[in-house]
Amino acid sequence: MKHAIRLGMVGGGNDAFIGAVHRIAARIDGKFELVAGALSSSAEKSRASGEALGLPADRIYEDFKRMAIREARLKNGIEAVAIVTPNHVHYAAAREFLKRGIHVICDKPLTSTLADARKLVKIAEASDALFVLTHNYTGYPMVRQAKEMVAGGALGKIRVVQAEYPQDWLTIHQDFKQAEWRTDPARSGAGGSTGDIGTHAFNLACFVTGLELESLAADIQAFVPGRQIDDNAHVMLRFEGGARGMLWCSQVAPGNENALRLRVYGEKGGLEWVQEDPNYLWHTPFGEPKRLITRNGAGAGEAAARMSRVPPGHPEGYLEGFANIYSEAAAAIIAKRNNRTTPQDVTYPTVHDGLKGVQFVDACVRSSARNAAWVMLK
Amino acid sequence: MKHAIRLGMVGGGNDAFIGAVHRIAARIDGKFELVAGALSSSAEKSRASGEALGLPADRIYEDFKRMAIREARLKNGIEAVAIVTPNHVHYAAAREFLKRGIHVICDKPLTSTLADARKLVKIAEASDALFVLTHNYTGYPMVRQAKEMVAGGALGKIRVVQAEYPQDWLTIHQDFKQAEWRTDPARSGAGGSTGDIGTHAFNLACFVTGLELESLAADIQAFVPGRQIDDNAHVMLRFEGGARGMLWCSQVAPGNENALRLRVYGEKGGLEWVQEDPNYLWHTPFGEPKRLITRNGAGAGEAAARMSRVPPGHPEGYLEGFANIYSEAAAAIIAKRNNRTTPQDVTYPTVHDGLKGVQFVDACVRSSARNAAWVMLK
Amino acid sequence: MKHAIRLGMVGGGNDAFIGAVHRIAARIDGKFELVAGALSSSAEKSRASGEALGLPADRIYEDFKRMAIREARLKNGIEAVAIVTPNHVHYAAAREFLKRGIHVICDKPLTSTLADARKLVKIAEASDALFVLTHNYTGYPMVRQAKEMVAGGALGKIRVVQAEYPQDWLTIHQDFKQAEWRTDPARSGAGGSTGDIGTHAFNLACFVTGLELESLAADIQAFVPGRQIDDNAHVMLRFEGGARGMLWCSQVAPGNENALRLRVYGEKGGLEWVQEDPNYLWHTPFGEPKRLITRNGAGAGEAAARMSRVPPGHPEGYLEGFANIYSEAAAAIIAKRNNRTTPQDVTYPTVHDGLKGVQFVDACVRSSARNAAWVMLK
Amino acid sequence: MKHAIRLGMVGGGNDAFIGAVHRIAARIDGKFELVAGALSSSAEKSRASGEALGLPADRIYEDFKRMAIREARLKNGIEAVAIVTPNHVHYAAAREFLKRGIHVICDKPLTSTLADARKLVKIAEASDALFVLTHNYTGYPMVRQAKEMVAGGALGKIRVVQAEYPQDWLTIHQDFKQAEWRTDPARSGAGGSTGDIGTHAFNLACFVTGLELESLAADIQAFVPGRQIDDNAHVMLRFEGGARGMLWCSQVAPGNENALRLRVYGEKGGLEWVQEDPNYLWHTPFGEPKRLITRNGAGAGEAAARMSRVPPGHPEGYLEGFANIYSEAAAAIIAKRNNRTTPQDVTYPTVHDGLKGVQFVDACVRSSARNAAWVMLK
Repeated sequence: MKHAIRLGMVGGGNDAFIGAVHRIAARIDGKFELVAGALSSSAEKSRASGEALGLPADRIYEDFKRMAIREARLKNGIEAVAIVTPNHVHYAAAREFLKRGIHVICDKPLTSTLADARKLVKIAEASDALFVLTHNYTGYPMVRQAKEMVAGGALGKIRVVQAEYPQDWLTIHQDFKQAEWRTDPARSGAGGSTGDIGTHAFNLACFVTGLELESLAADIQAFVPGRQIDDNAHVMLRFEGGARGMLWCSQVAPGNENALRLRVYGEKGGLEWVQEDPNYLWHTPFGEPKRLITRNGAGAGEAAARMSRVPPGHPEGYLEGFANIYSEAAAAIIAKRNNRTTPQDVTYPTVHDGLKGVQFVDACVRSSARNAAWVMLK
Repeated sequence: MKHAIRLGMVGGGNDAFIGAVHRIAARIDGKFELVAGALSSSAEKSRASGEALGLPADRIYEDFKRMAIREARLKNGIEAVAIVTPNHVHYAAAREFLKRGIHVICDKPLTSTLADARKLVKIAEASDALFVLTHNYTGYPMVRQAKEMVAGGALGKIRVVQAEYPQDWLTIHQDFKQAEWRTDPARSGAGGSTGDIGTHAFNLACFVTGLELESLAADIQAFVPGRQIDDNAHVMLRFEGGARGMLWCSQVAPGNENALRLRVYGEKGGLEWVQEDPNYLWHTPFGEPKRLITRNGAGAGEAAARMSRVPPGHPEGYLEGFANIYSEAAAAIIAKRNNRTTPQDVTYPTVHDGLKGVQFVDACVRSSARNAAWVMLK
Repeated sequence: MKHAIRLGMVGGGNDAFIGAVHRIAARIDGKFELVAGALSSSAEKSRASGEALGLPADRIYEDFKRMAIREARLKNGIEAVAIVTPNHVHYAAAREFLKRGIHVICDKPLTSTLADARKLVKIAEASDALFVLTHNYTGYPMVRQAKEMVAGGALGKIRVVQAEYPQDWLTIHQDFKQAEWRTDPARSGAGGSTGDIGTHAFNLACFVTGLELESLAADIQAFVPGRQIDDNAHVMLRFEGGARGMLWCSQVAPGNENALRLRVYGEKGGLEWVQEDPNYLWHTPFGEPKRLITRNGAGAGEAAARMSRVPPGHPEGYLEGFANIYSEAAAAIIAKRNNRTTPQDVTYPTVHDGLKGVQFVDACVRSSARNAAWVMLK
Repeated sequence: MKHAIRLGMVGGGNDAFIGAVHRIAARIDGKFELVAGALSSSAEKSRASGEALGLPADRIYEDFKRMAIREARLKNGIEAVAIVTPNHVHYAAAREFLKRGIHVICDKPLTSTLADARKLVKIAEASDALFVLTHNYTGYPMVRQAKEMVAGGALGKIRVVQAEYPQDWLTIHQDFKQAEWRTDPARSGAGGSTGDIGTHAFNLACFVTGLELESLAADIQAFVPGRQIDDNAHVMLRFEGGARGMLWCSQVAPGNENALRLRVYGEKGGLEWVQEDPNYLWHTPFGEPKRLITRNGAGAGEAAARMSRVPPGHPEGYLEGFANIYSEAAAAIIAKRNNRTTPQDVTYPTVHDGLKGVQFVDACVRSSARNAAWVMLK
């Protein structure tokens, strides 16, 4: 790696939450350098945000299209772009960069509509550039540990998968920016909690278990008066191969800040992981005492060690997990830069995972409209 | 209370789990004295068990019918009977005592069939004797605390109810007695996990929230090869008034010993209670820090104090919670003995709660047979 | 066991905390029957309390001496007495019963003065009656489990012992009865927190590790203005054989209800147990993941199983732990009744353990008076 | 802030733990750029490490003295240096940079001897450059929250301070590099566990409470055969103003990875914080339920918010806490750069805190040599 990867950003202006997260994540391992941005749909805000971030004036853009066109022509133009806008912009923005061979690191969900998601898959497949979706929770070392253990047979055949992702911030009507676009179907898509957090829980469940979801039955609600899209969803899951599960996501569950949790049970054992205490993984081999596996501690394996920076007992958190996705992306981009194959252990969520997420939201909405009938994911 | 209540027992012979529990529960507060029993369907075992318990020889019976007939005629015959047999015996046993005016304290589920449950309700309604069902988890002080808080409006209107009851002891095929009858539909009824533990979770959810379940959609499974009734169930819940919820019960979830858990979320706050750590109740008023309310500690109210014996920090457990149901029963029986009204705060599960539990199992089975369609509880 | 052991009680009148605890503990396993009492130093209160408990009028006594004299002469007089008075009465009461051959079950600390303790040891040694001290925390199954593991070498040679027992109820001046005598040196003895709870922590540390304390250095404080005896103590410990430790007890640590905790570390592993969550024992073999051993669950052994009543996941608590001491006492008393040797696995705290506890308090006070100099325990 | 602060590093070559931590911490908030280094006492290793980090060849130095001399003369030489060597090098290295006006960010403990510490204080006082000591645990948001609450009177007058810092990695003899120098008095100083982790616990206790330690009594041990400096220490604490406390640090406590914990009790309430779960702070106002204050969550104040990057429920960890010290240093350096006063809320550990830490180690060793007699800190 001769030089850091030149990174641009679309969205993520001053008052955004996720833009700042992406910037820190890109910085933690020193593999990216932010050099350009179209940081807001308002040209003025983009300018102000870019200046605050110390970007050169000529690389602060009014919109992502101009950015894509010009950066593609620059000698040292960006090699990758982070797309951190509201969901409805993902498709159009990603398209502009992908078709010019610029790698895309895109926030989830993939798009706000299923039609967009399908088109984006084709564009990504046709492009030589990489597409990385930031289902960041798959970057946590103990999530990698869990996946490794399931794949290695520690749990035997999987029977039951319990995924949940409760939050409480939308218990009441909120009108600050983060809440506003997330509760607007035009910008968020047809799913509220299902799109914003349900897709994370769904992706996590599939990532860890390696299972494909076959069908689901969903009962979704919008509890807060006037809310147009779901803020709570109960979903029953049937996986290929016979495993069953449940997924609950909620934005109206007081006492839950960001309580993503996954429990997986198989013929030989069980696993539990909780995002708010991410350095711990509980493992019970059936008939033996429960064990606490810790990040980089006794009992943790290679897949977790690859994703760790500090010794056990020195907690890593959300930003490090997010940074792991960026570092996996960096490994793939650098391999590409050097015309090498991406190392086999490099793992990141792809455009296909993104499509599945949008299919999940779509299926929840369809099922719920049919009184929670079972619907196929695809 | 001039003398302890004379108690008989049906079932609960030497190797039974729940019989011993009932005996300790009856003893803890000193309000019952065990004086008679038909402790097994085998006359020999009944004899041996009765002797081991120090019962007088003439009050150890070969079967419950003889016991009911004779005790009803004795001058100091039993005033109440505990029925702790496998489920399929509950109905016939309870009938014999109820119709002779002997109070019944019966283990759950009420009966093994819905038809029996309906008949038993009528018999109980026609009888002057009391019928107490040991949904023992409602005896825990912090469950009472939770109910009191919900009723007092601490959570506002309830939106979401998450109930779960995972265990792991039936992860593999087991053939000792406790497992054997519980997995036999002839003795357990149509529900496996739904009947044995799902009914507890369902009862607890209704008890705490005060809500009535309107309909459910259930996907039930028997994961262990050869098992005839469910060992895992996913259930979506719709309550009257608009609250929604989920119930998961499982006997095949390694790492869960007896992990009954209830979470309730309303417009103003949330509550969480876990049976394995029963002295704690988590309460989050929306927008404030989470609070840990402890049994008899700061923040705990009258309903919990009534059910407590020792100061905060001195944990009470399963047996004390169970004993609370017995003590509530005692209060009602003594009021009856003295021709007084039962004090208003005395609360115990009734034959009607029992019917609802059997309806719950029946609804789960019906829904699952129709591919998890919504079915009304009644 | 032909009949329950006839039990008397000294102290424990209506408003006492520990008397009620002893009565429930004696009742849980059905091995004792309370038949007599001198329940208060006030004859009137004794009468009222005895009646409330349903004792026969002629076996409610004005004082313990009359009770000892008369009961010793009765054909079916008490076989054992529970002494649950304030500390300063223990010695005189125990003496009256021991010298008449009545077994004594006495609350801790043994006595309020070291001189009394030494005399009581001699009296007990000279008596044919048993003396059982209710260091009840040694009755918890997982404490037995810990002792068994240490004895079995699971931790290797012990190096470090961390014992602590913080409470918060005396953070401010309190004048209800429980607080009043415990803060009065005339009734409590020279130690406040050291006597009331420090002795428990000390006893627990020695019980689990099997180590003898050689010397200690104590810095004791009375933080609440006007308080005459310690409400907080920091103690450094040196055990025979080279292990070192610390003991902290406090009655002024807000947020701690009854937070007795023991941690033991050896050359090969560590253990942690917390009284408020007593069904769990944490074990870490050095270099392996931490394991959660549960009462009656996987990984728990014989010593814990002996002391358990219900399956794992069904929490037992403080009263069951206390009842275990009563049941151990019952086993010894019944062996005595039948002229048999006490079974080898029967274990309870003795008058010698009681002496060590009083020596511990005495040593803390002596050390602290000498600016926390090291003092020998004896 | 026109440009990132140009940073050099002394120590922290390829196989070091803490060097990598400093580099990530410096990077997280984008306020530093690493441009030079003398990364090892071996010139060859320094070269290799510098190249691996992508430093320009002419700014990779053979030793820190040459680096200090040359960088001080460069037009765009380093503005600050991170010193991350074993302890015995801190003094000499810091001196070279301080006397040339280059800001120093130095790992703890300040020096390996008290004499060096005293000299370094004078040098730092005489220098115009800043000296920042990375007692990184004071950078955790909830530690700031705790300090703010104590200062604001939430606990009333402090009575008891319990600090502990157990680890287990030195339970057996280890000879990899991290262990080797930390157990060598020539490089580590007279304290083993006391210096490496005891100083952190001591600093944390003083930081949160605002109290000054007056005297201590220490019993230190080296349990592992052949170990020359302490691997376990028990310390009793007397603070100015009457508060008392205990500090336990250990490297031989199996089951403890990095279990720094602080508990503070005052007349009105108590606080508890645990490093391994750093986003939580437990607060109990006496007589009210315990509350869980979370980073950026309800109940958290300004001091914590200043140090936070992401919303509640998105855990921050060790690296973010460490980065906070770097960002505080950056704020002070930039103020200096611009001839402004450091903003009032900027807080970081100073050379004076470092001196106190070395005095703490010295006092522990002196006290222990005198059989744990009380010794004054100074």
